[in-house]
Amino acid sequence: MSRFSLNQATLKYAGLQDAVRVTVDAGIESIGLWREPVAEFGLAESAALVRDAGLRVSSLCRGGFLTALDRTAAIDENRRAIEETAALGAPTLVLVVGGLPEGSRDLVGARERVRDAIGELVPDALAAGVSLAIEPLHPMYVTDRAVVSTLGQALDIAEQFDASAVGVVVDTFHIFWDPQVLPQIARAGAGDRIASYQVCDWNMPIAADPLLSRGYPGDGLIDFESLTLAVAATGYTGDIECEIFNQEIWDSAWAGVAARSKESFDLLVAPHLS
Amino acid sequence: MSRFSLNQATLKYAGLQDAVRVTVDAGIESIGLWREPVAEFGLAESAALVRDAGLRVSSLCRGGFLTALDRTAAIDENRRAIEETAALGAPTLVLVVGGLPEGSRDLVGARERVRDAIGELVPDALAAGVSLAIEPLHPMYVTDRAVVSTLGQALDIAEQFDASAVGVVVDTFHIFWDPQVLPQIARAGAGDRIASYQVCDWNMPIAADPLLSRGYPGDGLIDFESLTLAVAATGYTGDIECEIFNQEIWDSAWAGVAARSKESFDLLVAPHLS
Repeated sequence: MSRFSLNQATLKYAGLQDAVRVTVDAGIESIGLWREPVAEFGLAESAALVRDAGLRVSSLCRGGFLTALDRTAAIDENRRAIEETAALGAPTLVLVVGGLPEGSRDLVGARERVRDAIGELVPDALAAGVSLAIEPLHPMYVTDRAVVSTLGQALDIAEQFDASAVGVVVDTFHIFWDPQVLPQIARAGAGDRIASYQVCDWNMPIAADPLLSRGYPGDGLIDFESLTLAVAATGYTGDIECEIFNQEIWDSAWAGVAARSKESFDLLVAPHLS
Repeated sequence: MSRFSLNQATLKYAGLQDAVRVTVDAGIESIGLWREPVAEFGLAESAALVRDAGLRVSSLCRGGFLTALDRTAAIDENRRAIEETAALGAPTLVLVVGGLPEGSRDLVGARERVRDAIGELVPDALAAGVSLAIEPLHPMYVTDRAVVSTLGQALDIAEQFDASAVGVVVDTFHIFWDPQVLPQIARAGAGDRIASYQVCDWNMPIAADPLLSRGYPGDGLIDFESLTLAVAATGYTGDIECEIFNQEIWDSAWAGVAARSKESFDLLVAPHLS
């Protein structure tokens, strides 16, 4: 068994059927799904498709966006996302928590609302058997995408709730820079809070659209050895996703992208897992 | 007396004489200098120019770049920068510590070299009466400019040395995102480690050249009230610099830029200082 999982965002322009076919053809055993292509293909149909293909579903992306002053709509949307995660047989719903509401500069208040909203969702997560995985994003996204920027901060929130309901995402791209990253990975593991480990590289120079500055492991400047050893040392045994936002990769042939993702994982990540 | 200081990088294309003239004409009492324009005009001539203009020199930018495996050249360069800082009558030399050396992915090792190099420079700083100010830069610059990304990390290094020799820069643009920013400002103040407070805003979307995404206070998404109150609460009484890298501002008429910088400071920063 390989623990490698291809996140379908790496094949951005593939629909679900193509993404599943390419993943299976590449000899990959697990896939990370996104809500939009799943909705397009149909939830029940998507669940059947991945099941019939023999794939595990490592996570569903994405819930979150919980920072609005009125979060009624966001809570409803996240409840639907939790149900979808369960229906797909995925253990984890990835949460990108949201940035500042229009006109606001209050990061502290936004963070409090994230914590409160997650608290509202915990009963749903427990009932569905789904882990809500708070994903700290790189601080360059703090105002527009995620007011949670560090693993320590994500854990400060997660630890207020049941470990089976709220965990964190360890994504190399977002947290490799953090001087506290290794002790915080250990802390996450000790509390059984690692809900997902995601690997992609930090390409320089930063792309003009800073969302798209990710690369295959090995193409950028991240030390995958130290991060992977730290994750492995916690006893984390789940799938490991490769999720790359990169225009050149998105414009490449899908089969090659899947193969290259797995090769990079086998070369730079897998050797440090045992 | 106003504590506002115009960093001359805000007037990137002005030589030293023009920058000094524009600063004085705008009724500003202090200026932050850069080594290159000072060298161009001459060190002794520059010192005389600012003294005759009646300006304080709040800091000299910049020393640092201490992460090379062989730091002999960097140490020599920083010793010259310390001497220049003293000759200009400035209390502070700002250090941008440097990114990863070519081909390296070892952030931990690079950070150790920064600490060791600063230790080598401490006797020179003490002898010259100059404070070395470690500037944490936003984590988007971690690989190419500064392996020190947070105020906490800068303080962990600074606190290993005499407080009169090594301090930190509190720059709103670089640290506003940090969930630990307020307690770390308090910690910096308690240890008498705030060597410089710099204000500029975080403009969104991030500029295609991410170095240039700064704005006048008020143009972006930073809450200057909470940060300035935290700095003021420490008892910091030094000058407060406005240093903006922004192509549109660089291309604007200098007198207007100086006036607008001071207005932004008077409106958004000064009210929270007392």
